[in-house]
Amino acid sequence: MYNDIVLDHFQNPRNVGVIEDATVVAKEASPSCGDTTEFFLKIDDNDVITDIKFRTFGCAAAIASASMSTELIKGKTVEEARKITNKMVVDSLGGLPAPKVHCSVLAEGVINKALDEYVANK
Amino acid sequence: MYNDIVLDHFQNPRNVGVIEDATVVAKEASPSCGDTTEFFLKIDDNDVITDIKFRTFGCAAAIASASMSTELIKGKTVEEARKITNKMVVDSLGGLPAPKVHCSVLAEGVINKALDEYVANK
Ligand code: FES
Repeated sequence: MYNDIVLDHFQNPRNVGVIEDATVVAKEASPSCGDTTEFFLKIDDNDVITDIKFRTFGCAAAIASASMSTELIKGKTVEEARKITNKMVVDSLGGLPAPKVHCSVLAEGVINKALDEYVANK
Repeated sequence: MYNDIVLDHFQNPRNVGVIEDATVVAKEASPSCGDTTEFFLKIDDNDVITDIKFRTFGCAAAIASASMSTELIKGKTVEEARKITNKMVVDSLGGLPAPKVHCSVLAEGVINKALDEYVANK
């Protein structure tokens, strides 16, 4: 069902957890299944995302996508991170089965919500 | 979203893994989301289920339900195990959010498929 990259990120998800002193936190429920995903971002004075963690109640595809998103985003500036699309996340995972792509969209949505909030609060 | 019993079974799922010399193995994909769940049962000569393990690509509700199912079934006879319903699993979990009940149904379906196969092969 899933390729080796997806299985690796599902079985050994990167950056799982919470950041107690996060700069921004965002959480959302998937409209299709109700599963929530939450991201914690630590952003420094130069708008660099120095740390990012997540937790999710979602399925293997949601876990792998959130995990891959954290790897793509960590160390990037807010501006660079906003250019990362769900397609880039899915491509980096080597693809997802078509019925599971919607489970991956949530990660991008929650991260953008967090970044929007950061920009608005600045 | 989830109560403490569900969260406990999601975060510390019981009996995750495979049984290499299982008596019966069954696997199915959820019709609603495509996530697969697989159960491995070890059944002795007296029809007692001495060991049961599972693995799933499903969400928190699927993991918690599979985990609770293994606790209810381990040590039971095949006949007793067939009387365990999805409602009993969900009740033992202290309930699930309505949109996530369908994620829990798969565990019962896969276990019954395994037990049917065992009975048919006897
Ligand atoms: S959403 Fe697929 S098992 Fe729950």
